[in-house]
Formats: sequence, structure tokens, C-alpha cells
Amino acid sequence: MSHTLTGTLGDVGEFNLVAALTAKFEQSAEVLLGPGDDAAVLRAPGEQVIASLDMLVQGRHFRLDWSSATDIGHKAAAENLSDINAMGGRPTALLVGLAAPADLDVTWALDFATGLADEAAKVGASIIGGDLTQADAITIAITALGICDHGVVRRSGAQPGDQVALAGRQGWADAGFAVLGRGFRSPRAVVDAHRQPQPPYAAGPQAAALGATAMIDVSDGFLQDLGHVAMASGVAVDVEKADFDLPESLQAVGAALGVDPMRFVLTGGDDYGLIATFPAGATLPDEWRVVGHVRESDGAVDPGTVTVDGAAYDDAGGHQHFR
Amino acid sequence: MSHTLTGTLGDVGEFNLVAALTAKFEQSAEVLLGPGDDAAVLRAPGEQVIASLDMLVQGRHFRLDWSSATDIGHKAAAENLSDINAMGGRPTALLVGLAAPADLDVTWALDFATGLADEAAKVGASIIGGDLTQADAITIAITALGICDHGVVRRSGAQPGDQVALAGRQGWADAGFAVLGRGFRSPRAVVDAHRQPQPPYAAGPQAAALGATAMIDVSDGFLQDLGHVAMASGVAVDVEKADFDLPESLQAVGAALGVDPMRFVLTGGDDYGLIATFPAGATLPDEWRVVGHVRESDGAVDPGTVTVDGAAYDDAGGHQHFR
Repeated sequence: MSHTLTGTLGDVGEFNLVAALTAKFEQSAEVLLGPGDDAAVLRAPGEQVIASLDMLVQGRHFRLDWSSATDIGHKAAAENLSDINAMGGRPTALLVGLAAPADLDVTWALDFATGLADEAAKVGASIIGGDLTQADAITIAITALGICDHGVVRRSGAQPGDQVALAGRQGWADAGFAVLGRGFRSPRAVVDAHRQPQPPYAAGPQAAALGATAMIDVSDGFLQDLGHVAMASGVAVDVEKADFDLPESLQAVGAALGVDPMRFVLTGGDDYGLIATFPAGATLPDEWRVVGHVRESDGAVDPGTVTVDGAAYDDAGGHQHFR
Repeated sequence: MSHTLTGTLGDVGEFNLVAALTAKFEQSAEVLLGPGDDAAVLRAPGEQVIASLDMLVQGRHFRLDWSSATDIGHKAAAENLSDINAMGGRPTALLVGLAAPADLDVTWALDFATGLADEAAKVGASIIGGDLTQADAITIAITALGICDHGVVRRSGAQPGDQVALAGRQGWADAGFAVLGRGFRSPRAVVDAHRQPQPPYAAGPQAAALGATAMIDVSDGFLQDLGHVAMASGVAVDVEKADFDLPESLQAVGAALGVDPMRFVLTGGDDYGLIATFPAGATLPDEWRVVGHVRESDGAVDPGTVTVDGAAYDDAGGHQHFR
């Protein structure tokens, strides 16, 4: 890839860098006014807009020695596009803030922007604006905006008797993280899944159209995120290990590291797959794998309870910040 | 103020803190779905939404020894609400990301949220979502969303012959910054202006309704931001020192520090006043003070040129990141 800018961010300066980054960002027909003014203007069909903001911090959400700038651009965009997907929406735009050290090579920022733009292009979303500022550690803030053709799907609508279904990969990114943490770089499939997650972008609007009663994306960990749905819905959920896909690559990582590969599946996050609940009778397309059922919570079972094969999982895992 | 949470962010944990913060945020009728799901849903009348994202970094955009957590909440919200104001829009919502050290006192985060909420309430905007994560330095990311009743006002529409007008304070925050930088805490008016800017929120939509041809908010510095309008519009601008307001507090700071107080007015940022251009014949209400005129750029005068009393200002100042 040829870049016309060279040197550090400090050498290049904010205004030149903004111009170079902005030149990478194609604007769709949804964008009425793109980057370069005090704010952007986006179409909002149906007079509604879906909006979410996430931050990623160097050393916590990504490591420069584990992921390239392009990888980090892909992942940062994917994580945020996934939030719109999890509502059953279609992402139309991203706003991107980058705080970075002045001695960062400008190539890093340009490659990061390429990753962002390429991931956003998968769903036809445009990067309509943002901010660039100086900080000691690279810190990324992204707002995803989207629209909804079928009404949004919240976390709180799961009903006793509903099927619990999963779309997209689950456990791959966590297995990749485990592999990288031991100093390995393979199996490549799981390492790549950590570096550039592959959210099932079509599945969110599909679930909304199919009448999903609740939905969430798996960012912190499968059981933890499913627990959020169960809690918000005031229900309990049981999943069956045998109903999950346990691909060969996860089995290989489990064998190599001496851990049960179902751990990656049940407690891993960062693949940005979707968990949705559907009415008992709904016929689901191939994208969705039924992995459990919603139960009533009652005196014996607290709302928010998630069991695996009918019992508490030994360590529900998942991630909570500051802990 | 009584808070039920005590200790550090690490003691309290992400989920408890999110719950406490969210409880502070009232939701307006524009909000169809507020905090607590994967994304929020906001009304967008006219099928358009205005959107902007800014980041603020501890030690660069604010100092914990110069500003309280409440001040920083006010300022972070004001800076972002101002971007919507500068388009002629009305802000309806904020998304707020806070990255902070685990050993930060929870009271800081709660007071920050109070400042945010109180500033947003000035314009009826709701805090509809956000993110909370760990970082070594406090880093704030805010997205402001808004709507536009009169069509947006861009930077690029200034025409030769237009009047250049200013709404809101100018130079106050910069004078406050200078005072704090010398270790003083008074005059209180300018120190307070640095801590909690007072953007003229009514003036943005008013300018749009009055037929403003171009508009920008003063964030980096008056001459620099006016230069952005001149450059985007392909024109030159001349302002007259005598047309500016030079309040007593700025004169007092200038005398105390031995600097020309017009420097604060001409090169200061962070008051988030508005610069707008209006057709020559337009009669402007009291909120707007005419301070200059738009001229043609030609062979002798480059587009983007801003002169003061017909000559280049010795140091146009203003802020550029990474420089």
C-alpha cells in the first residue's frame, strides 16, 4: 500500500492527517454531509436512529504486538457494527475518535483507517466523522449509527418456552487469545478470529424479521451475555453442551493447552456472534443453531439464571471492567 | 450530594457503576430506547440526524487540579453539544464513553455524570448510552446527536460582502487558562469560563433561521476557526478589533499578566461561541455582534486569509494536535 505521508503523527500534524484519513472514507447515499464540518448529517429513514458507543484501549482491548493496525481497525469497527446488528438494525455510519501518541508512525493511523473502512464496507456503512487527538496510549472511541427496518429487538423480551439460538462463531476469538497468550501464533484460524472477528452481519436484521423476542451480541462471554438476556427478561435459561458446534480448531487448541475446549465456547467473548430467542414453533434458517431453551424463573430459580445441561457451570467467566 | 456507592471504580465494578450512572440520566420523549441494551434508539424527525464525536484526554484537555469532576462533565458535554449548535441544529442526545483508572474514586465518576447531565439538560438532550472501561489516564469520548429544523449551516457558504458575526463569549476561557497557568485562581469569571464554558445554545438554530451562509464554533481559536470558514468558502475575511467586546475581566487579566487582552479574544478557543456569516442586508438580533466582513479572494489575497484591521495578525495562534 502506498501512502503519501511519512514520519510520525507529530511530523505530519493533525490537519494533514485528518485530510489523509478522510480521503480513505467513501460516503454512501445515506450520508447527507460527510467529514469536514462541525458535525455530519445522516439519513434516518423511519425517523429513528440506533446509536451505540464503545471504547478500545491499547493494552486492554488490543496489543500492538498481537494485532496489526489493520486488524485493530477491523476489530474496532466490527465490535461497534455488531451492537447495531444485535438490535436487529442495519449499520449506516461510524464516527471514529483516535487518541494516540505523537511519536506513533503515521502508517499505523493510515492502516488503522484502512481496516476500519474495509470492515464498514462489508455492511455499506460510511465513516462520517470523528476526532483525532494526542494521548499516551492509543485509545479508540467509535459510535455506530444504524436504522431498523423491522423494529428493534431488545434484551428483555425472552419468554418461557422460547428457543435460544446462536448465529456466528463462538469461542474462536477466545481460543485465539489463549494461544497468543502462550506465545503461539497458530492455529491460524483462531488467531485470525481474535484479530479480525467475523460478526454475522446478516443475522441481526434476519432475526428481527423472523420475530426474535430478545437478542444480544456476545462480546463479554457467552454465558455472561446470555445471563444479561435472562435477567432483563426475568427468565431462566438452560443450554445443552451437545447442541453447540465444537470445531476441530477449538478441539486442537484445547488439546494443546490442556483445557476443555467447551470453555472457549461457553465463556469466550469477542467473536460478536448473536444470541437470540425465538418462539417455540419458529423454524430457523441455517444461520441459527438452537442451543437451549428459556424457562420460567420461580421460587427455586432466580431470574437471570443460566444453566448448562441443567446445572450451574463451574465458572461462568466473562469479562467485567475494573475487576 | 449523597452517593450510595463508595470506594474506587475497582471496588464498585463496572456493572454497579453503570447502574448508578444510568440512574442519573433522565430520558426525554425523543428517546425511544435509553441506556441498558446493545444500543439506544432515538427519534430523528425529518429523517435526518446530525452527529459528531469528540475526545477529551486528562492532562491535555483538562487537569484534575484545575477542574472538578462536575466541571469536566459540564465542559465535555458543552464542547460536544456546541458542534450540533454550530450546524444550526438542536442537540437531542449524547453517548458518553469514560475510560478511567481502577483506583479512581467512584465519587469522581458520579460527579462527572452529574455535570454531564446538568449541561445536557440545558438543551433538553438525554444521555442515551455509552461505555465504561479501564485506562491509565481518564479519557472521555462523547458523541452528540441532534436534529435540524431549518437545514444545516455548513462552513463553506460564506459569500463576499457577508457580515461576519460572533455570538457568545470570546477570550474568556483562554484568559482563565492563562490565569490558572500562572498559579492564580482569579478573576473568578474567567476561571469559571475555562471550567464550565457557556455556549450560546440558542444562537445556532437562530442563525440557521436567520439565513446564515456559514457557521463554526470557536473551539481551537477565533482567527484559526474563522480561517476554516474562509478556506472552506474560498473567501478572505477582515475583522476589526474595535468591533469586539473587551470586557473588564479580560482587561484586568491582560494588565495583571502583562499581555494585550485582545490576544485572548483573537486567538483563544474553548468558549464555544459561534462565528457565522450573514448576507450584507440582514438585521441581526442582539445575540450577534458584527465583527468583520467577507471579501473576495483574488490574485493578491489567498482563500482562507483572515486579516485584523486589514493586516495579518502577528500570531494567529490556535491549537493543532500533535504539534
